[in-house]
Amino acid sequence: MLAVSKVAAASPVSSFYIGPLERCSVRRLLSTSATRFNAKCGPTGIVFMNMGGPSSVEETHDFLYQLFADNDLIPISKNYQPAIAKWIAKFRTPKIEKQYREIGGGSPIRRWSEYQAKKVCEILEETHPQGAPYKPYVAFRYARPLTDETYKEMLKDGVKRAVAFTQYPHFSYSTTGSSINELWRQIKQLDPQRTIQWSTIDRWPANRGLIDAFAENIEAKLLEFPESVRDKVVLLFSAHSLPMDVVNTGDAYPAEVAATVYHVMSKLNFKNQYRLTWQSQVGPKPWLGPQTAKIAEQLAPTADGLLFIPIAFTSDHIETLHEVDLGIIDESPHSAKLKRCESLNGNETFIRGMAEEVKEHLESAERYSKQLPLDFKLGKSNDPVQDLDEMFQPTKA
Amino acid sequence: MLAVSKVAAASPVSSFYIGPLERCSVRRLLSTSATRFNAKCGPTGIVFMNMGGPSSVEETHDFLYQLFADNDLIPISKNYQPAIAKWIAKFRTPKIEKQYREIGGGSPIRRWSEYQAKKVCEILEETHPQGAPYKPYVAFRYARPLTDETYKEMLKDGVKRAVAFTQYPHFSYSTTGSSINELWRQIKQLDPQRTIQWSTIDRWPANRGLIDAFAENIEAKLLEFPESVRDKVVLLFSAHSLPMDVVNTGDAYPAEVAATVYHVMSKLNFKNQYRLTWQSQVGPKPWLGPQTAKIAEQLAPTADGLLFIPIAFTSDHIETLHEVDLGIIDESPHSAKLKRCESLNGNETFIRGMAEEVKEHLESAERYSKQLPLDFKLGKSNDPVQDLDEMFQPTKA
Repeated sequence: MLAVSKVAAASPVSSFYIGPLERCSVRRLLSTSATRFNAKCGPTGIVFMNMGGPSSVEETHDFLYQLFADNDLIPISKNYQPAIAKWIAKFRTPKIEKQYREIGGGSPIRRWSEYQAKKVCEILEETHPQGAPYKPYVAFRYARPLTDETYKEMLKDGVKRAVAFTQYPHFSYSTTGSSINELWRQIKQLDPQRTIQWSTIDRWPANRGLIDAFAENIEAKLLEFPESVRDKVVLLFSAHSLPMDVVNTGDAYPAEVAATVYHVMSKLNFKNQYRLTWQSQVGPKPWLGPQTAKIAEQLAPTADGLLFIPIAFTSDHIETLHEVDLGIIDESPHSAKLKRCESLNGNETFIRGMAEEVKEHLESAERYSKQLPLDFKLGKSNDPVQDLDEMFQPTKA
Repeated sequence: MLAVSKVAAASPVSSFYIGPLERCSVRRLLSTSATRFNAKCGPTGIVFMNMGGPSSVEETHDFLYQLFADNDLIPISKNYQPAIAKWIAKFRTPKIEKQYREIGGGSPIRRWSEYQAKKVCEILEETHPQGAPYKPYVAFRYARPLTDETYKEMLKDGVKRAVAFTQYPHFSYSTTGSSINELWRQIKQLDPQRTIQWSTIDRWPANRGLIDAFAENIEAKLLEFPESVRDKVVLLFSAHSLPMDVVNTGDAYPAEVAATVYHVMSKLNFKNQYRLTWQSQVGPKPWLGPQTAKIAEQLAPTADGLLFIPIAFTSDHIETLHEVDLGIIDESPHSAKLKRCESLNGNETFIRGMAEEVKEHLESAERYSKQLPLDFKLGKSNDPVQDLDEMFQPTKA
């Protein structure tokens, strides 16, 4: 009953007011079968938000167009952005198609996201039956399934309560911020009556499962180095970089990534040397460094071993499979000493950690984190959410 | 006896070898009075290393000269650096003298450092009597007492064992790295026979006392805001910035500062909005942002309150007393809403935390952190320590 009373207490209407969703929770609590479908309340949607990637080579062009057309990610002139995006997408498509071909014909991010979301829902059926049944969804920003596609499906499924769960553990306005802005546009477009009550998990840099899973994967990969050098391997935690002009807006991302790294190293008792480095810089503007490739190049000749850890994405993607594996490791004259840690993908510790994050979120009255309004105050967008309380307020139908 | 056996086990000579310092520890353990002076062993020196600041206005010129002549801090041509430093120091002295006059006629950093070191030694006499007696020292990089002055005093005092305890909780090659390089130069110059056995605490970003003291000071300062806005005050954790070309070498500092911030916010249950920002940029080159002053200027008009927390220095200095207090707060049209958190200075929680850090260090066999060799591999200097094991190896006299 704790969850219910917390929600009721936080209700802006009155402490005596019990809204329809709270009534659903009460009904679910009284239900004997945790997973029994409740037609009136509908399933709880757990929506994994991410940038996505083309599942097949053919989807590359559309993916690139969506990406370069995103004003939250690349804040250029809104009027000209579609034309510019069209041109850049056309220009870059052959190169990027080739990269996707080289990693097996597409990004595995959809497959992993669907798997992870499904598993999280299965765990929640057990650990937080008040919200059952749960239904997993994926909403990508630049690839299918796009947010609008997923939203329509959720409406069809009768979802009344949904958690927009960012799959970026660290908040950046250019990633999670962009997904939230896009979700708000779709709410206005597809659900003006607000039949779905939304809340969001907008960051989770110190989630226990996340930290433990990284540590597990590092330990496992270290075992592949000869025992004599194992404790001398340098760990390079590599995250996608940001342009300095985004860093300089006060974007939360760099500090939150660093927090994750420190937690993982604490878990490992700092038994190896490590450094946080940044990858995937493009274009002539200055980006946050040090660059992963440069530090690797500097250390590789004399290092006993280098282990790359993709610390800011939760499943494999082109930046691990192509940029690190094929670009940095395979191209190095010291490739025998260079390894990459497995991405989290289907790691069970990680998935349990995510389920725990959602459970705690549902148990709290929090609709978004305390930090989110500041992120939106500092972030730059041509079409941002104006009022987070309006977006994440409960429906009162 | 744990400490002794650990040290003996880590001895490179033999597991049966017990050196003179270990014998001292045994003798001390058997001593009935923890604080009784042991002439043969000599006191344990606890040396607070920091950049320092001019204690009086008259010392400003020499301080600036030492600072601009430091090749580890400002890596320019070694041959011309003394001449350039002389010129810059002369040119900048009047402006900086004026600033020191405005904050009361000098930097309080020596007074605070001497106080903190003394208190830490008093606690260690109780908590780790095996090392007693303890003697506090301060070794500044740019102001009196300089490292050579302190070293001579330590030799005169008969110190045989010393801990170089950096007062920068976060490692940067341009700060702690520079102090360690200078210490090594003085060891070679003043103590070629290695009568003092050195070890170092080269970083402590998550020290419990440090984190708790920051949280305490934040809580205390928040009470000075009206209760109605207290939980809406934005916390700006402000640290001295670094030039991007230093950040891009892979300097550990930015990520370690971010780790401290996250730990403090965890302690505070993330109950306020916060951001890590960077201050004290000088010159035309790009530095790490976001800039404290710019974020403050952007947020101040609509904020309910802003609280600045000096997160990377442990006592007051010109960057808090002048740059933040007089520069950012007093100059703002919104100064009534802007406050600065007390620096740690004489905070007892903080001092107990430092004593605990030294105790754990002395109990371990660690002579420097696992990270330090990587810091020295990545850092740029014209005259660096070549072999950390040689520097921090026990004397075998």
